[in-house]
Amino acid sequence: MVAIVKERREPGLTLKRVPVPRELGPHDVLVKVKRASICGTDLHIYDWDKWSQERIRPPQIGGHEFTGEVVDIGGEVSSVSVGDSVVSETHIPCQKCLQCKTGKMHICKDMEILGVHRDGVFAEYVRVPEVVLWKVDPSIPLEYASIMEPFGNAIHTALVTDLTGKNVLITGAGPIGVMAVAVAKVSGAAQVIVTEIKEFRKGLARKMGADTIIDPRKEDVPSRVRSITEENGADVFLEMSGNSTAFEQGLRSLTNGGVVSLLGVFPGDVSFDINGLFTFKGLTMYGITGRKMFETWQVATQLLKNKRIDLSPVVTHILPAERFEEGFDAMKKGISGKVVLEF
Amino acid sequence: MVAIVKERREPGLTLKRVPVPRELGPHDVLVKVKRASICGTDLHIYDWDKWSQERIRPPQIGGHEFTGEVVDIGGEVSSVSVGDSVVSETHIPCQKCLQCKTGKMHICKDMEILGVHRDGVFAEYVRVPEVVLWKVDPSIPLEYASIMEPFGNAIHTALVTDLTGKNVLITGAGPIGVMAVAVAKVSGAAQVIVTEIKEFRKGLARKMGADTIIDPRKEDVPSRVRSITEENGADVFLEMSGNSTAFEQGLRSLTNGGVVSLLGVFPGDVSFDINGLFTFKGLTMYGITGRKMFETWQVATQLLKNKRIDLSPVVTHILPAERFEEGFDAMKKGISGKVVLEF
Amino acid sequence: MVAIVKERREPGLTLKRVPVPRELGPHDVLVKVKRASICGTDLHIYDWDKWSQERIRPPQIGGHEFTGEVVDIGGEVSSVSVGDSVVSETHIPCQKCLQCKTGKMHICKDMEILGVHRDGVFAEYVRVPEVVLWKVDPSIPLEYASIMEPFGNAIHTALVTDLTGKNVLITGAGPIGVMAVAVAKVSGAAQVIVTEIKEFRKGLARKMGADTIIDPRKEDVPSRVRSITEENGADVFLEMSGNSTAFEQGLRSLTNGGVVSLLGVFPGDVSFDINGLFTFKGLTMYGITGRKMFETWQVATQLLKNKRIDLSPVVTHILPAERFEEGFDAMKKGISGKVVLEF
Amino acid sequence: MVAIVKERREPGLTLKRVPVPRELGPHDVLVKVKRASICGTDLHIYDWDKWSQERIRPPQIGGHEFTGEVVDIGGEVSSVSVGDSVVSETHIPCQKCLQCKTGKMHICKDMEILGVHRDGVFAEYVRVPEVVLWKVDPSIPLEYASIMEPFGNAIHTALVTDLTGKNVLITGAGPIGVMAVAVAKVSGAAQVIVTEIKEFRKGLARKMGADTIIDPRKEDVPSRVRSITEENGADVFLEMSGNSTAFEQGLRSLTNGGVVSLLGVFPGDVSFDINGLFTFKGLTMYGITGRKMFETWQVATQLLKNKRIDLSPVVTHILPAERFEEGFDAMKKGISGKVVLEF
Repeated sequence: MVAIVKERREPGLTLKRVPVPRELGPHDVLVKVKRASICGTDLHIYDWDKWSQERIRPPQIGGHEFTGEVVDIGGEVSSVSVGDSVVSETHIPCQKCLQCKTGKMHICKDMEILGVHRDGVFAEYVRVPEVVLWKVDPSIPLEYASIMEPFGNAIHTALVTDLTGKNVLITGAGPIGVMAVAVAKVSGAAQVIVTEIKEFRKGLARKMGADTIIDPRKEDVPSRVRSITEENGADVFLEMSGNSTAFEQGLRSLTNGGVVSLLGVFPGDVSFDINGLFTFKGLTMYGITGRKMFETWQVATQLLKNKRIDLSPVVTHILPAERFEEGFDAMKKGISGKVVLEF
Repeated sequence: MVAIVKERREPGLTLKRVPVPRELGPHDVLVKVKRASICGTDLHIYDWDKWSQERIRPPQIGGHEFTGEVVDIGGEVSSVSVGDSVVSETHIPCQKCLQCKTGKMHICKDMEILGVHRDGVFAEYVRVPEVVLWKVDPSIPLEYASIMEPFGNAIHTALVTDLTGKNVLITGAGPIGVMAVAVAKVSGAAQVIVTEIKEFRKGLARKMGADTIIDPRKEDVPSRVRSITEENGADVFLEMSGNSTAFEQGLRSLTNGGVVSLLGVFPGDVSFDINGLFTFKGLTMYGITGRKMFETWQVATQLLKNKRIDLSPVVTHILPAERFEEGFDAMKKGISGKVVLEF
Repeated sequence: MVAIVKERREPGLTLKRVPVPRELGPHDVLVKVKRASICGTDLHIYDWDKWSQERIRPPQIGGHEFTGEVVDIGGEVSSVSVGDSVVSETHIPCQKCLQCKTGKMHICKDMEILGVHRDGVFAEYVRVPEVVLWKVDPSIPLEYASIMEPFGNAIHTALVTDLTGKNVLITGAGPIGVMAVAVAKVSGAAQVIVTEIKEFRKGLARKMGADTIIDPRKEDVPSRVRSITEENGADVFLEMSGNSTAFEQGLRSLTNGGVVSLLGVFPGDVSFDINGLFTFKGLTMYGITGRKMFETWQVATQLLKNKRIDLSPVVTHILPAERFEEGFDAMKKGISGKVVLEF
Repeated sequence: MVAIVKERREPGLTLKRVPVPRELGPHDVLVKVKRASICGTDLHIYDWDKWSQERIRPPQIGGHEFTGEVVDIGGEVSSVSVGDSVVSETHIPCQKCLQCKTGKMHICKDMEILGVHRDGVFAEYVRVPEVVLWKVDPSIPLEYASIMEPFGNAIHTALVTDLTGKNVLITGAGPIGVMAVAVAKVSGAAQVIVTEIKEFRKGLARKMGADTIIDPRKEDVPSRVRSITEENGADVFLEMSGNSTAFEQGLRSLTNGGVVSLLGVFPGDVSFDINGLFTFKGLTMYGITGRKMFETWQVATQLLKNKRIDLSPVVTHILPAERFEEGFDAMKKGISGKVVLEF
């Protein structure tokens, strides 16, 4: 089969032929990949940065976001059948730790990640354990199914608190940020306010329903937020940028008793006035990783199946797998939403 | 001033001139009524049914839903000023009981109700205690402001649980029921399913965003609900009918672990298979009364001010106060949503 | 091996020799039973009542509450090993339905029950699927481990809301009721108030920490509750009796905004003034079934391991398996807490 | 009357005679102070540090923690009467901001603090607005009533999540820390683990129920916590020290999905690995300020009235007001719990 492979410990990825993973353990499933999408993590692996060098052991197939069809199952698989359309959690839980045993597999203490710790999904076929698969309604277009994993990040981040009638601030309009705009909007947010500096991303945020877009280089974020919220400030703050200045601006923009949901990954330690900006304001902050298995996937499915959210503005590129370099290139240049590859 | 008065212990209401309530206690506020709307409770009082006979002491001015402008304030009033546009909670809390002291004034143990225990708002002026007033954005049209009290019932009932991606069943498409349709829809419900038998109300539900309307005389409600929810059943059930058959159908339609929110008032005791339909299913049920003071009002304000919900289909009649009989008549015939009176 | 078997479709159980269930599926585990305890359900099966006649297919081994040691495992079992001390969930989830896939296995829509739908644990060995097993700290005495299943019911029922400083009413002082007394007490309840008519059970409730015991034949429950709670009423009501009068008394005893947790199984439909006793009071009611898998078991383990709760008063009988008739007899006479059998 | 006064902009406090505040506004209450206790804030004011210099305007009476008896009330006061025993919130809410109007007075955006922004309670009489008073059961000893304010801090911090069966880590065994030990213990914590370096405070923590006390100078906190929690780590972390190293150790000690409750005030900005120690672990963090008005006070009252918590080890000094210097001295030396002054 064709696959996009990290061949050597150096920058770049290679499209090449590799064997189909035919040996299935009792709980393994072989999925024919139909669409896969590129995540920022894949960019790190492409670039062979420090993070990648510490984790990836070439040769390895990349990618983790995908949708496909079940073509073979191990002897003990009972939750999916050959022919099922599926999407997949990318975090493979151990199913043994206390977290896994008590309904919190998404924060498993001994987790493997698809395309990081083992062969990924940028290939015609991928072998995954049954536990990560989620059946997807065939009425959901393949390109949307293939980005349900990052869409799930947006849902998981946004739904930490009830949003109806709330003013929601989102810092960072990357693909997950703009999907969070749509999630907040469909969940009843009174106003969705986005901070972003890149013009392309501002446009995406607008298309996904943002009411106000603030460029933090041009305006003081907390002042502007207060001015459009009768001086109350934002009720909810979704941090999607991984930028510590944006984080601080978000905290300053929140009203007393507000809620922070943190998905952004920062380049290093973060320093802030925790007394004045967090404790004395009586804030609540949630750290978000992955997606709840599978509560988040069920919400994602229902929203897409019932056409409550239109992901079309986010999918800016649909490319045949062999043109993957174009997709990585668009992402590096910051002129893309999600890039979907066809296998 | 002109007022609509229950003059005698008998059916009917009378439009007549009465004195303006000019003496204000230190925390009293005199409000010039601009719009008032008719509630089902007012119909009971008009009809002089058993419930009314036990509570109303004529002569008394009726009505409790309204909006207006502050024209005079008592010496200790500090939260509103002359000229403010206001709406009003209709449940006057004692401010002394444990519930009132611990942030739950809406379930005060010693509550007075406007237009029931004291003169109401069907008049050019009404005197209310400061504690019930909520400043309303003047950009909200008067007819919508006047129905924020029942709109608040819909919000309070619907928002007991997160609705994003959920299948929501609402039994009864009266004015509050159809406003709950809009609240559920704007809060991200995957599907809003309504049961109703009256054609006029089915139409209102549809206009307010219902995805499916089931006539329980023609279809089996639980079967139909399951058929449009991949056999899962509804996730959330808002009881708005006060009909015990509808209540049972709703419980049967819920999936295991589902949520019931109960606003409907039943004609008497309700009997049901609490083991099979509630306990073994692991349901959660909320009893709803009034509106949270003032969390619910803040949500209502934000939704209307930001035009997230359009209440225009609900306001089917706007009449000058002197034509109030027409309004009561339309309500009795079941051919109205909310009837708003102009004072 | 020796087992206690429902041999025929008639009252009674028989101690007899049966084959050890040696064939294990890939996820099956063979457990050597050390202690098993008798549940009210086993009494129904013994008596061969209507409920049993509809469900039990003799010959079948009875019992579902137990602790033991793993002696053999199927080829795919990974979460327990030979030699592990284990307790077991008695509700076997399908692991495929939406509830199972979203962290709510305890309300699985297609559940099997040990000792009801398949051979139970009143035997020297039992075969169970891996998914229901929970490793138990060997420092917990065997007789307490064997009743962790009903102890879990008490925990699941009591912990629907925070109890610190709350006045908690429990109706019914059967074994689960009195364990709930201890759970409420250890969780910070200000006062635990119990209603019960049987003297033996009153004594157990007292030993487990009840502050006040009300005999509803001698006193008006709501009046007494109010008199010992500064007229506020109870904050939380745990229904453990399955008696509709007790249920109504409990609702009447609750303060506005109170919480009901319902474990008791009623003999038939329940009728009550849902307007006055539930909706207008703004109550919240939870239906409880089983135990959360395995959040509840983790709490149970921590409480026992750290000796925060002493279950010794509840275990009134420890008998060799062959004297099981004595145990059933004591339970029928209402002069027992939990009866534990040694295998 | 006698009062302890900050007379000049310099270190020290003076016991002197000042006039009784006899003029009462309509909602003011005059309380005869019976006991008052010294808070760390009072120490800052005594020492005239930078924080105090920016806030206190001498001459001003100090102190904010107290209990007393109502001796006079303004014309509109309705919630307390002359002769009532009372304690008092020290945060005076504006009652007008959105937070105050929506049941969150404790995070009022325009709050005044007793003894900071206006005359405090180190005096024979104090005038306070009605809104901050809470009637206290006379059965609660005066010295415990006088420390209900910091006890409320402990309760507010500890009860952000259900504690039954949880392993709770508390960093810092000052007076509020050790009261939090008792609150966590009474609320069902499986184990309460405390970090502290001062011997005197270790002793207090032990007396208040701590199961394990770790000296972070001698042991690695996260390792020790894991070793006594079957390698799971703590479930809940209450930060009471205001020490950034303790904060980081606490985060490291938490299990995935754990909860942080933050009361400690840090000397400046705090820097930490928010990705690894917070976001990826899926933690939730609450900023705590003041006490919920008056949910927290109700819990405090119920716990003390029903003798569920014994505060006697915390009250290490009871002194006549004129010996206040001894109390401040003991606090500075770190050889006290709470110091209570008799007026």
